[in-house]
Amino acid sequence: MTDALVVFTPSGKRGRFASGTPVLAAARQLGVDLDSVCGGRGICGRCQIGAAQALTPPNAVEARYAAKRDLAPDRRLGCQACVQGDTVIDVPADSQVHRQVVRKDASSRPMVMDPATRLYLLEVAEPDMHEPSGDFERLARALREQWDISGLQPDIQVLQELQPALREGGWRVTVAVHRGHRDPTPRLTGIWPGFHAQGAFGLAIDLGSTTIAAHLTDLTDGSVRTAAGVMNPQIRFGEDLMSRVSFAMMTPGGAAQMTAAVRTALADLATDLARDAGIAACSVLEAVVVCNPVMHHLLLGLDPVELGQAPFALATSGALEGAARDFGLGGIAPGARAYLLPCIAGHVGADAAAVALSEAPERSRDLVLVVDVGTNAEILLGNTTRVLACSSPTGPAFEGAQISAGQRAAPGAIERVRIDPVTKAPRFRVIGCELWSDDPAFPADQPVTGICGSGIIEAVAEMRMAGLVDASGLIGSAEQTGTARCLPEGRTHSYLLHDGTDRGGPRIAVTQGDIRAIQLAKSALYAGARLLMDDFGVDRVDRVVLAGAFGAHVSALHALVLGMIPDVAVERVTSAGNAAGTGARMALCSRDARAEVERLVGRIHKVETAIEPRFQEHFVAANALPHATAPFDGLRAHTPLPDLSFNRAAPGADGRRRRRAPA
Amino acid sequence: MTDALVVFTPSGKRGRFASGTPVLAAARQLGVDLDSVCGGRGICGRCQIGAAQALTPPNAVEARYAAKRDLAPDRRLGCQACVQGDTVIDVPADSQVHRQVVRKDASSRPMVMDPATRLYLLEVAEPDMHEPSGDFERLARALREQWDISGLQPDIQVLQELQPALREGGWRVTVAVHRGHRDPTPRLTGIWPGFHAQGAFGLAIDLGSTTIAAHLTDLTDGSVRTAAGVMNPQIRFGEDLMSRVSFAMMTPGGAAQMTAAVRTALADLATDLARDAGIAACSVLEAVVVCNPVMHHLLLGLDPVELGQAPFALATSGALEGAARDFGLGGIAPGARAYLLPCIAGHVGADAAAVALSEAPERSRDLVLVVDVGTNAEILLGNTTRVLACSSPTGPAFEGAQISAGQRAAPGAIERVRIDPVTKAPRFRVIGCELWSDDPAFPADQPVTGICGSGIIEAVAEMRMAGLVDASGLIGSAEQTGTARCLPEGRTHSYLLHDGTDRGGPRIAVTQGDIRAIQLAKSALYAGARLLMDDFGVDRVDRVVLAGAFGAHVSALHALVLGMIPDVAVERVTSAGNAAGTGARMALCSRDARAEVERLVGRIHKVETAIEPRFQEHFVAANALPHATAPFDGLRAHTPLPDLSFNRAAPGADGRRRRRAPA
Repeated sequence: MTDALVVFTPSGKRGRFASGTPVLAAARQLGVDLDSVCGGRGICGRCQIGAAQALTPPNAVEARYAAKRDLAPDRRLGCQACVQGDTVIDVPADSQVHRQVVRKDASSRPMVMDPATRLYLLEVAEPDMHEPSGDFERLARALREQWDISGLQPDIQVLQELQPALREGGWRVTVAVHRGHRDPTPRLTGIWPGFHAQGAFGLAIDLGSTTIAAHLTDLTDGSVRTAAGVMNPQIRFGEDLMSRVSFAMMTPGGAAQMTAAVRTALADLATDLARDAGIAACSVLEAVVVCNPVMHHLLLGLDPVELGQAPFALATSGALEGAARDFGLGGIAPGARAYLLPCIAGHVGADAAAVALSEAPERSRDLVLVVDVGTNAEILLGNTTRVLACSSPTGPAFEGAQISAGQRAAPGAIERVRIDPVTKAPRFRVIGCELWSDDPAFPADQPVTGICGSGIIEAVAEMRMAGLVDASGLIGSAEQTGTARCLPEGRTHSYLLHDGTDRGGPRIAVTQGDIRAIQLAKSALYAGARLLMDDFGVDRVDRVVLAGAFGAHVSALHALVLGMIPDVAVERVTSAGNAAGTGARMALCSRDARAEVERLVGRIHKVETAIEPRFQEHFVAANALPHATAPFDGLRAHTPLPDLSFNRAAPGADGRRRRRAPA
Repeated sequence: MTDALVVFTPSGKRGRFASGTPVLAAARQLGVDLDSVCGGRGICGRCQIGAAQALTPPNAVEARYAAKRDLAPDRRLGCQACVQGDTVIDVPADSQVHRQVVRKDASSRPMVMDPATRLYLLEVAEPDMHEPSGDFERLARALREQWDISGLQPDIQVLQELQPALREGGWRVTVAVHRGHRDPTPRLTGIWPGFHAQGAFGLAIDLGSTTIAAHLTDLTDGSVRTAAGVMNPQIRFGEDLMSRVSFAMMTPGGAAQMTAAVRTALADLATDLARDAGIAACSVLEAVVVCNPVMHHLLLGLDPVELGQAPFALATSGALEGAARDFGLGGIAPGARAYLLPCIAGHVGADAAAVALSEAPERSRDLVLVVDVGTNAEILLGNTTRVLACSSPTGPAFEGAQISAGQRAAPGAIERVRIDPVTKAPRFRVIGCELWSDDPAFPADQPVTGICGSGIIEAVAEMRMAGLVDASGLIGSAEQTGTARCLPEGRTHSYLLHDGTDRGGPRIAVTQGDIRAIQLAKSALYAGARLLMDDFGVDRVDRVVLAGAFGAHVSALHALVLGMIPDVAVERVTSAGNAAGTGARMALCSRDARAEVERLVGRIHKVETAIEPRFQEHFVAANALPHATAPFDGLRAHTPLPDLSFNRAAPGADGRRRRRAPA
């Protein structure tokens, strides 16, 4: 009897096998990517294949698995089904280790799975007094013999759990093994008695100056189990990065205080996320962190003082891989590993690297401008020929801070604003209510507590379009504007958005100071983008990607009206969602992504805004609010108004004086 | 003009070099082992060569070095002296990196130097805003360019010191780089501004159940700067190993308490040693630990419970290399590395491995028995064909514990005893006084506080030789022995060694209980040795090496009289001093020694005493005190006495019943 021909799809790999060969064994021999954690014991269910011809009929192990864990009728366990004749066997996507997982949520990216951490079920030989090897050494031998992984190294923390786990599991344990993209030495990072059905998880952490966001991610398929954000507790040491660097410089032990604060917050966040997902902390085996350079240094316990002065030298710019505990990351498995993405420069951090990984400007044929606005704006400009990056100190105004009625994005905050160009009456939406404020059904008792970042941006843009503000940014008087909502306030005016005082609520107005804060922030953002365009030698970009919360909540129209970003057709402005967080998740799920971001960062050319005289020029030139009307047709009907310059001429006719960099 | 022929001695390496080539450069090119820390800047003085013909005359750099640091008239700096013609250049031993260092102290071994940690002086490029690499990345580049060492990895703790050191040193720093014997990845483990003249040091730690000894060792030449011992604070949790394992089993958190106690003691000891030597803690860059398996587990935070019951499974038996902080070792440099020697088995630890490394039984043509007595005895038997090992639970009697008047070896303790075979009168020496007690000059006010381990061993052997004790171990009555010093005590007798009660001192006697304690201890030791001899298939050994404090203080004669060790000519019994400590120092100074001990441990066959019935047989059979006279002539004159068996026959005619293991 000749051997049977077995063809695997979609890989097309094929070979001949003796009748009775398990499909999993055939797949391994051919190098077909068919997952398995239990190594053929019919426990993990990861090796599912499509039912096919010429296989042995379902056996008792498959029946037991189907009863306990659910097995679709058209599926078989590859470790149980044996070849009986020529056949074509389909390996479904969810049974591949290295696969692209497309999430249903449209805003999230397909994740390519190639995780550094994987689980393996092992049968470990019992100790023998006459062959006195240690339990770890026998476990390492089992990994070599059963999974062909040699040279396992112990983690001292995991060694502490090893002996109880082996005995509780009756010498059958699940181990977590980490193999890095640069150092492929296998490391034992976790151990559980018997089969650890819960699986392996990782934390993708976006550590911002103001907020910390984390996604608890399944390392099997990249799915997000829970996500949460907390305020960065370092805010009490300074709102923006430079004030934290100052705190570190001026206060003995100041840097250590900030390090301790952020580490505690991260550990608490990790603990909360695992608890919310019903996952044991010891199942969280990896963490990936993206952050700006100052947060990077403060997390690692490095004094950030050099980042506060030219030449803005990082202690280290390379990616870091190591024990999570060495990076101060707690609340997860004691043996967990961590990866910090590389920084691009002293002002352009691992968060920008994560955005680059996620948005891949180096693969864009169009010239794309990627803008990620937080307390600093990270700006990337590039295409397949080259990629430039810079960071611009926008300050926290875009996040609602330093605004008279500003607040964080939270229920009760005004997040959208429209102003009727004729009546000058405003309407708005608040977070937590789907209705506009002029809707008859808008609840009379709806709390309106303040205005958040997207709200103030829309308010200023709408005020400009309604003729309440001139090109220089001055709010007109009631007389000039024709509405009693423009009230004198000292030597300037403010525009009343909402008065809740009769119900004990706040009075929410846009003051002249608010306009100035937004002008400063948007000028910094615009000047950064312009500086990169100068260096690239272009006057226009083909498209703009708005990343981060900013991108998700600010309309392209209003960003263009304000002059936050260079002119581009409004339909060429897209939102990338939380691109830094997506980049962190990509690096969490894939070793290839880590290698890629390290290569990519080496290719990005960084432009330093802080010492570049042209940045100041662009900044000053960008102060004006150029567009009295929406710059593009067909989106909203506006009555064009004459541009009222209440007191003086705007600083530039179009607010966009340009100077080309010397050739 | 043709190139000059340069021949280096003692290596004999030769080559032709252009006139003007510095000798250090020529040596490097030929692979001659000529040391250098500063890389040719005339600062470190490590590249000294013998003055030779046809070299450029001494220059200003050499004159400055000679004035500051002392340069012998027949020496030159290899980095300054340049070749001018054919010449023979001697590289003295102290200028070689890999060299054998013979210490003047006769008891210490030649150390072969091949340290994992070395220092390098670097000139690091300053940061450039337009080439925004991190300081660490530029430092790694300098190490590659200036020392040809690629792929430097950071330690997170050292990163914290990096930026201040670079700036304080004006971009010239000394770095400590660790490259292991298994993982040769270079790691940054220390950094100092400018040239770090103090050098690099390591701690060789012998962590015993009762005492902890450590040697602060210069990693340049293996010399011991300071050494100290402290009591193991775990004694309060149990005198011997099994009582500590019991404490861990019975007390929740007991293992953690013991771990914390020993870690604190080690950190304090390290701090004291560095302070005494006038060395900064941050210059202590490595630690090597040897210890028994229970201490090994307790140091690492591993619960030792499995070591208390068959099959005595170690959590890990392999050598461990890692960050010292991960092993709980403090009081040294934050980035220091640590190495734990491998364990041989659950009862035969890294201390026995260190003894094997030091005494090298596998290289002995004679069959050698190596005995290292502490609270447990580690016993090795072997020659070039094979090596066997076991551990025997002698208990603490040999250390003076569990003896009625016993005390630790300290001033006032009786350490040597002689009994006149005719008069039965004793004389003794106490620690802290050079005179025997019967010397007319022996001070009347000399404190005599108790008897230490070597004292009780000699006392029992002398009592046997003086006919005060029979072969079964019974002390005779005054009537039977003819001396009033044998006093009734309950149903047995004791022998009065010293009565200091008239001066308020203690009354020191050897009781029947003391004899029994010594009999139990020596039987265990003897039985272990016999068991190995059975397994080896021999009745005799060629020589015996007594290691440890025991070996240094107990005379071979008395050990043989007591029957502690198998019969062998007394001149074939030698003392190895602190062999475990020597093994630790060898591993500290040499990566090759680490590789060697790992190979060696793999070759040692371990015999388990705890479950071997023959051990019990040997133990019972060895209970007698066989020799009424010194077994060998020519060493001391004894009057042979009839063997008085006061009450009953001794258990064996010669106390040495033998049974060969089944073939």
